[in-house]
Amino acid sequence: MHRTRVRVVEGVLDANDTIARANRADFDAADVTVVNLMGAPGSGKTSLLERTVNDLTGVRVGVLEGDVQGSLDADRLATLHVPVTQINTDPGFGGECHLDANMVRSALPSIPFEEIDVLVIENVGNLVCPAEFRVGEHRRVMVASVTEGEDKPLKYPLMFRACELVLINKIDLVPHLDFDLDKLIRHVEAVHPGVSVLRMSARTGKGVEDWRRWLVQAAGRVPERV
Amino acid sequence: MHRTRVRVVEGVLDANDTIARANRADFDAADVTVVNLMGAPGSGKTSLLERTVNDLTGVRVGVLEGDVQGSLDADRLATLHVPVTQINTDPGFGGECHLDANMVRSALPSIPFEEIDVLVIENVGNLVCPAEFRVGEHRRVMVASVTEGEDKPLKYPLMFRACELVLINKIDLVPHLDFDLDKLIRHVEAVHPGVSVLRMSARTGKGVEDWRRWLVQAAGRVPERV
Repeated sequence: MHRTRVRVVEGVLDANDTIARANRADFDAADVTVVNLMGAPGSGKTSLLERTVNDLTGVRVGVLEGDVQGSLDADRLATLHVPVTQINTDPGFGGECHLDANMVRSALPSIPFEEIDVLVIENVGNLVCPAEFRVGEHRRVMVASVTEGEDKPLKYPLMFRACELVLINKIDLVPHLDFDLDKLIRHVEAVHPGVSVLRMSARTGKGVEDWRRWLVQAAGRVPERV
Repeated sequence: MHRTRVRVVEGVLDANDTIARANRADFDAADVTVVNLMGAPGSGKTSLLERTVNDLTGVRVGVLEGDVQGSLDADRLATLHVPVTQINTDPGFGGECHLDANMVRSALPSIPFEEIDVLVIENVGNLVCPAEFRVGEHRRVMVASVTEGEDKPLKYPLMFRACELVLINKIDLVPHLDFDLDKLIRHVEAVHPGVSVLRMSARTGKGVEDWRRWLVQAAGRVPERV
C-alpha cells in the first residue's frame, strides 16, 4: 500500500509540474516576475505586503492571495493601490493546505498582467506542502517569525531549502523572547547553505528597505536613484 | 477532474476513519484517554508539554510526537520523566503535513499503555489538514499563539471548530504586539460558539494550572486535593 501511495503522490506532483510550466510560460510571455511567498500562519506575510507593495519605486506590484477560506487578506490589501486577486482553496471539500499550479492557473484570467511588473503570490500559511507544489513562479521566498523558535529550519527543512530568500520577521520581539537569533540563522544555513537571509520587522519597518530592494532586483529592473 | 478529485479525497478520509476507529478501540481497551494536540508551527505545543506533563498529580502522561523530520521535540521531552514515542511523516516522499490514523496505528506497539493514563499526541504544526484526519483520539485541543494575529479563526475555521479547547498561548507578549486579545476570542467564539478557551503562557506559567486541571479531568480522574 505504501508503494502505491508514493506512486499516487508522485503522479500528483508530475501533473502539477506540467501545469506549473504552462503558468511559467504565460508569466514569461507577459514579462511579469512571479514570487511565491510562503511561511507559517501568522508569520507576517500579509503585513509585510501591506508595508511594501504600495510605494515601490520603479516596479508595479500585483498580489494573488491564497487562503483556505474567506477574503480577509485580500480585503486588507484592497486598501492599497495595487491589483489584488483572491483564490480560495476550499471549494468542494475541506480546503487544501497549499496552492497548486491548477488553482493559480484558474486565477490567471483575473490578473491584470499589463498593469504589473511583479506578481507576489501569497501562499496558504503552512511550512510543509507549499514547498512541494510549484505554481510556475520564478522566485521563492519565505517569511519566518522569530516567535516560531530557532528549531523550525531543522523541522521543516524542505521549505527552508526551497526558498532562495528567508525573511526573518518580527525581530522587534526578540528582547521579549527566550530566543537566540544567531542560532536560528545557523540552523537556516545548516539546511540551506548560502541562502540569502534578511532580518526585519514588518511592524517597525526595520529591514523592510532591503526586502523592497530585493523585490525590485527580482523584477530585473534597476532601482531608480532617488 | 474536480469531481474525481473530491471522490479520491473522500475515499482517503473514509479509509482513515476506519483505522481511527480501530485505534480508538485499542485506546479504550487500554483505558487511556488520548488527546490530539494541534496548532501552527511555533505556537508552543512542545513548550506547553514541557511545562505540564512531568508533575501532574494523579495522572500519568505519555507523549506521541509527530514531526515531518527529525526528533527535536521528542529529544526535548526525553529529559522529562514520561514515556515519549516519535513518529516521522517523511518516509518515502516529501513528508506529510499531518498525522493520520495509520501513522498513529504504526506507533501503537511502541507506546507503554500500561504505564500511562493519558496519551497526548502532538500533531504536525499546521492549521489545515490535522483537523481533517482523526487518529482515534477522545479529545481535540489546539494551541493558538497571540503572535499569529486575531484573524486566524476566520481563516482556518475548520481547525478552531474541530477542537473542544483552544489554548491561547504567549499572552505575556501581548503588550509588545499590535494585537487585541478580546477580538481574537470573539473570532474564536464566532466560528465555534461555546468552545472552551484558556489564556496562558507556557513561558511564564500563567494559566498553565488551568490546562493541567483540564488534562486531569479529561482523563476522568478527580484531581487529588493537595
